[in-house]
Amino acid sequence: MQLQFLGTGAGVPIKNRNVMSLALKLLQERNAVWLFDVGEGTQMQILYTSIRPRKIEKIFITHLHGDHLFGLPGLLSSRSFQGGEKNLSSLTIYGPVGIKKFIKTSLYLSMTRINYEIKFYEIPKIGGKIFADDQFEIYALPLEHGILSFGYRVVEKSQEGRLQVERLHKLSIPSGPLFGQLKRGEKVKLADGRILDGKDFVSERKKGRIIAIMGDTRKSKQAVLLADDADVLVHEATFECGEEKKAHRYFHSTTTQAAEVAKEAKVQKLILTHYSARYNNQDLKLLRKQAQKVFTKVVTLKDLDEIEIPFRKIK
Amino acid sequence: MQLQFLGTGAGVPIKNRNVMSLALKLLQERNAVWLFDVGEGTQMQILYTSIRPRKIEKIFITHLHGDHLFGLPGLLSSRSFQGGEKNLSSLTIYGPVGIKKFIKTSLYLSMTRINYEIKFYEIPKIGGKIFADDQFEIYALPLEHGILSFGYRVVEKSQEGRLQVERLHKLSIPSGPLFGQLKRGEKVKLADGRILDGKDFVSERKKGRIIAIMGDTRKSKQAVLLADDADVLVHEATFECGEEKKAHRYFHSTTTQAAEVAKEAKVQKLILTHYSARYNNQDLKLLRKQAQKVFTKVVTLKDLDEIEIPFRKIK
Repeated sequence: MQLQFLGTGAGVPIKNRNVMSLALKLLQERNAVWLFDVGEGTQMQILYTSIRPRKIEKIFITHLHGDHLFGLPGLLSSRSFQGGEKNLSSLTIYGPVGIKKFIKTSLYLSMTRINYEIKFYEIPKIGGKIFADDQFEIYALPLEHGILSFGYRVVEKSQEGRLQVERLHKLSIPSGPLFGQLKRGEKVKLADGRILDGKDFVSERKKGRIIAIMGDTRKSKQAVLLADDADVLVHEATFECGEEKKAHRYFHSTTTQAAEVAKEAKVQKLILTHYSARYNNQDLKLLRKQAQKVFTKVVTLKDLDEIEIPFRKIK
Repeated sequence: MQLQFLGTGAGVPIKNRNVMSLALKLLQERNAVWLFDVGEGTQMQILYTSIRPRKIEKIFITHLHGDHLFGLPGLLSSRSFQGGEKNLSSLTIYGPVGIKKFIKTSLYLSMTRINYEIKFYEIPKIGGKIFADDQFEIYALPLEHGILSFGYRVVEKSQEGRLQVERLHKLSIPSGPLFGQLKRGEKVKLADGRILDGKDFVSERKKGRIIAIMGDTRKSKQAVLLADDADVLVHEATFECGEEKKAHRYFHSTTTQAAEVAKEAKVQKLILTHYSARYNNQDLKLLRKQAQKVFTKVVTLKDLDEIEIPFRKIK
């Protein structure tokens, strides 16, 4: 599981920094990629990654501002051209009401033929659980921005320790009630005198990871709720510390405010993105240091940077 | 007057080649830039040129396929952020019916505030003269493509030779009927005995330039009409020579067919663009050589290349 940042800029692109898009790569987990926001030029950025558009399974749009949205029609069109014209799997788009009309209008007027199914999930204003299967649950809540802007919380299911049945069979141990004992981690004495320790035959329990990805927002309680105990919080930091008035006026956050959310939510790591065009890549170190005065585990990054999200050590 | 190619690719972008957009730079002529097509990512390409979005006066969309269109909402939005929030001049968009709905829907749903006036000119199917002032006339005709696709003919007015009145005044020659004689290129004897030759005081007559820019199309008679006697013809060459069947099926042209249009229209120069993603930049030389078997003055180019359009020598 990795996060790759396809665009990290606010509002307008600058040289070497595109507008917003973020890929959650779930290749090991489900052979799929999920995108969060698709600013203009996202499909061009993808050309410089290992991401294959055919693997994009879900797209989450935080809000309908153009710098988070205008790359979507082009990406959907180009996905049609991806090898194996048949068998392209369907794709689901989640976002505020209006996302369906925007896509339908764009594809209709441009006479774009799409050779796979597009499903839409327009999220009610109040948010809620928007997806669940046996691997993941996804929640959305409205944040505080000039227009309806969602934050998302992706919760991976924890994996219980699994009994390594094949290994037991290789040791000529037949199935039966003692498998249950082993799975509970008990010691078992076999009829032939061998003693087995369940702990040797049960894989480690893995706590599911939690990834919280915010749309544009002022500092908000909802972001804290979405990010509660998360392994990673991706939060906008449009402005530097000291620009709180400006951030408030434009419905954005400063580095410090993002760090306060991370601290209140007790996350493992904070990733700052959505930098104003006034900050160049040399300024990112400063932005990070500002946030670190409040919360130590902060990352700033450039377009195309990728971050691994490891399983958390269980105490 | 220059043409700068912001994107030269067909259908989908590849590394180092964006989808379609072309700038006609008229900075000396009218301190303005006109764009022909605005594929996704055009505003990002512009960052790597000297073009200032505030100077974009007119945008001509050839047809509504996404690779010619999907960069337009983002470009219009970003233009609003260009310095001097007031005083941004209005901008006119020309294109097939539907262009207005696409832009209005995109800007409305994304709640984009535009701080300048956007005018729309939806061109009737049959084409015609779509603009005229004291410098330029612009014509459009429908070409032959899967959807309505226009070609454009930009005709610069010729400049008559101008009498250099200031120079005459400096020589203490008063205004009067002899100015007319000089302007006609006649020799004039002054009262003080001096002899002036009109040819020395009349600037050279300049034949207005003609630029013909085609949208996607099969080889067509309409392209020949639009390009008649043009200084430059920009024609698509999606496929190489030999792929005429494929070109026909997808409503495109081959290198050879584009050259045939140039030859029939007796243009000064043919520029090929809209290359299929199957051709990389190394292949462009081959594409050019194919066209040159039919018409010698052919140019192929890479994204961001710029071509000067000089005045034609008058015989």
